[in-house]
Parts: sequence; C-alpha cells; structure tokens
Amino acid sequence: MNVDWSRISHITKVDPAKSLPDDLEVLEGTDLIIVGGSDGVTAENTLETVEAVGDAYPDRPVWQEPYSADHVSTDTIEAVDHVSVPAVYNGNRKHFVGKHVELFTEVGQKPEELFGSSLPVVGNFVASKGASVVSTLTEKVVGEGYVVQHLESEAANVAGVDSKYTPEQVAGAALATESFYGFPVFYVEYSGTYGGPADVEAASTYLSETTLLYGGGIDSAEKATEILEAGADAIVVGDCFHEDPERFRETIPA
Amino acid sequence: MNVDWSRISHITKVDPAKSLPDDLEVLEGTDLIIVGGSDGVTAENTLETVEAVGDAYPDRPVWQEPYSADHVSTDTIEAVDHVSVPAVYNGNRKHFVGKHVELFTEVGQKPEELFGSSLPVVGNFVASKGASVVSTLTEKVVGEGYVVQHLESEAANVAGVDSKYTPEQVAGAALATESFYGFPVFYVEYSGTYGGPADVEAASTYLSETTLLYGGGIDSAEKATEILEAGADAIVVGDCFHEDPERFRETIPA
Repeated sequence: MNVDWSRISHITKVDPAKSLPDDLEVLEGTDLIIVGGSDGVTAENTLETVEAVGDAYPDRPVWQEPYSADHVSTDTIEAVDHVSVPAVYNGNRKHFVGKHVELFTEVGQKPEELFGSSLPVVGNFVASKGASVVSTLTEKVVGEGYVVQHLESEAANVAGVDSKYTPEQVAGAALATESFYGFPVFYVEYSGTYGGPADVEAASTYLSETTLLYGGGIDSAEKATEILEAGADAIVVGDCFHEDPERFRETIPA
Repeated sequence: MNVDWSRISHITKVDPAKSLPDDLEVLEGTDLIIVGGSDGVTAENTLETVEAVGDAYPDRPVWQEPYSADHVSTDTIEAVDHVSVPAVYNGNRKHFVGKHVELFTEVGQKPEELFGSSLPVVGNFVASKGASVVSTLTEKVVGEGYVVQHLESEAANVAGVDSKYTPEQVAGAALATESFYGFPVFYVEYSGTYGGPADVEAASTYLSETTLLYGGGIDSAEKATEILEAGADAIVVGDCFHEDPERFRETIPA
C-alpha cells in the first residue's frame, strides 16, 4: 500500500447510491475519498462516482470500499488507487474471515474472469497466474480491522454485530491488529452516531505502524478536533457530506 | 520475527506431555524445535522441555506453540525464541479471531501480571505500558494461518473444523494469508495422517513472502521429499519423533 498517511487527516466517504452535489468544490480540502455504501450500490454507480471525483480532482487519492463482491468490477478496481476491505472483529465469522476466504478462493481460481480483459496485466495472468494475482492483490487491497460500535447501524446488522466492544476490548482488537493480523488500518466505526473519543484513545495506545481511523457522526469542527486529538490519524465523514455540505466543510481541519 | 527460513527445512514438534528420549542426539539435524501439544500440556512441562532442548542444543531455535493461554507463562515466553499462535481458517470464529482478541485484550490490560517480574523489560512496562507491550508481542508472536485437514484429529475437534478445504480453498486461504492477513506462516495441518502433496502444491502457487509449512504423518524420507518438492518451505514431524526415533531420523533431509 502506497499511502502517505502524514498528509491525510480528513477522509470523505461517498455513497455512490446517493446523488453527488452538482458542484464538487465541496470536496476541496478533503485528503482522500472512499467510495462505498450499502443499499443501492452497484459496480456501475461506483464507477460513475469514482470517475466524477477523478475528473474534478485528478490528483486526489480515491478508494473503493465494497460492501459485497457485486460492487467490484474490473473497471472499478482499475479506476481506484486501493480497494479497502473490512474485517469486523466484533461481528460473525463470515465478516472477519468467511467472505474473505471465499473471495480469495474465487480470485485464485478465475483471475482472468474476475479481472477481465480490460487490464494490461491480463497477459501476465495467463502466463503466470499465481504470481500476478498475488502481486495485484497485494498492491491494491487494503485490509481494515473494524470494530462496529453502533448497534442500530446497517453495518452492525450486516456483520452480525450483537454487542459493542468495551474500550478495553477495542484496545485488545487494536493490539491484535498491530501485532498479529497486520491490517494497515484499524477503524472505529460508529456509522450514523457520534461515539466520542474513548474508543479512539483506547486503540491509539496500542497502535504504532497501523493507521487509526474513526467514522461516525462527525458534523462539526469540535467533533473533528476531539477525535483527532484523541489519537485518530484521520477522521471519516460520510453522512454529513450527503446531508449538509455546509456543515461538512466545517469538519475539514484548517 | 527474525527467522532465517533459508536454513530451515525440517522442524520437530515436541509434545511436552510426552517423555523425551534419554538421548537427545536424535534431534541432531532438525533445524527448529516447536514445543506444543494438547492433552496434559502445562506451562511447567513446556518449560522443562524447552530447557532440556536448550541444554542439548544451545544454538537451535526453539518455539512454543501454545494450545491455550494456560500453557504460557512469563518463563516460557522468556525461554523461547518465538511463540507461534495458530489462526484456523476452516474452524470456528473462536479459533480464528475470538480467542485471539480475548488474549490481546487481557495482555493490553494487565501486562505486568501476564509477563510477571522475571523479565528485564518490566520496568519499561510500568513506565510505558502501551509501547512495550506492542514491541514485545510484535517481536515474539508469530501468527500462523492454519488449515486443519484431518477431521479425526484433536486439532480439528478443538477448533471446530467440520470440513476439509478443497485444494482450491487451500489456495484461497493461502492467497488471503499472503495478501490480506499477513501471517508470516501458512500451515497445512494433517496432524496424525499423511495428506500428500496436493494441498501444498495448491498453496505454494499463491505464497511469496509467507512461509509454507506442512505437518502430518511424515515418517519416511520419501514423504519428506514429496512434501518439500511440492513447495513446502519446511516439514513438521511430530508423532514420529515420539513413536519411532529411528524412523524419525530418516525424515531429516540429508
């Protein structure tokens, strides 16, 4: 993963199933755009969103965070800098490892079909299936160790999250990420509500190489600052971008 | 992890609940000893075994592969070069991530108690809990992505393994290890029976940085050679070491 985290403190999560504002100037100042959502997301609307952002901001990093394999196409993979894939610590087995092994099993068996013929590397796939698949995936995929803390969110519902982690358990999951699972990102997800700094503080004690992200309910400069000062490397703002572009602007650190 | 895998092709798994041979010369030629087992294992007999091997072969790397947190003590951690911890892909959630987060949560909260006062680093723990715990664990713990393929084994029983992986699924788990979970080791475990080269061949296609180990039923030079030629970086011999030391010697590559 080639990401300069020292230059990233504000991330916008854009839902491709929701309409973009006509004027994308609102995204001036955000450091990274992650395109993803749940209901209504398709590979097509994902690609449209990625391309619209890329047209307005050709130098801005853009990722795809797919909710299911259906959201991913050869075109979306090619269009983004990275594909971020959550592994949910406090959900069911399927959402930490089950779906993931299924995805990698499929990729391992049919790399030409999955990646299609629009990528320049397809010649390599045919010639040396294993090495190219490994190389492509290792460069594109960013694993994210997730803790989903808002039980009434769609994220919790889908991932089978029955209970929040205590701050101590968040710290344990962070330590597991840093020392054992090696995901580049640890993500405290409050999706749809503001969780405050406690979990971020707990996690940041045990993270060194791993990037710490927080998302959920940030709709003001105060909340943005509180979370960054608690130890997050960057904040993720999603709902506010779609619901109130003016308040969204206030979340971007000066 | 500081392991020179280019110098390791034969690994002996020693069960501390079983008696060691009087003459440890039998271990001449094996490159690494991993101390672990299931029934009857304690931290005490683990330490005794580690120390006995260390006395006979002071320069040989020795690891502990604990079956449960009960097997681990401050003394065993200090005595070994590494503590290897399996994460079983085809078992239940508990044995891929559940127990692991519990362990790391406990370590994160009580590092002094877990690591005790016999380690020289305890002063650092008191002064800077987070950084030292992370550093110690990151250096000592080796994560192993396991596929348990012998359904009648104790390993399968404990880890909730209901079904074998096909070679395609083994390849998928290997690719997931290389690209997503980042464990240093991928382990094809046939524990108690000889599985043959198919799974090792499938996995080796997708492993580059990750070390590929195979264990299960190796009791001859032919089986040892077959598995190494199929792509394993090293073979693990356990039962044969305890049951038939002369046949065990034949498994060590010349």
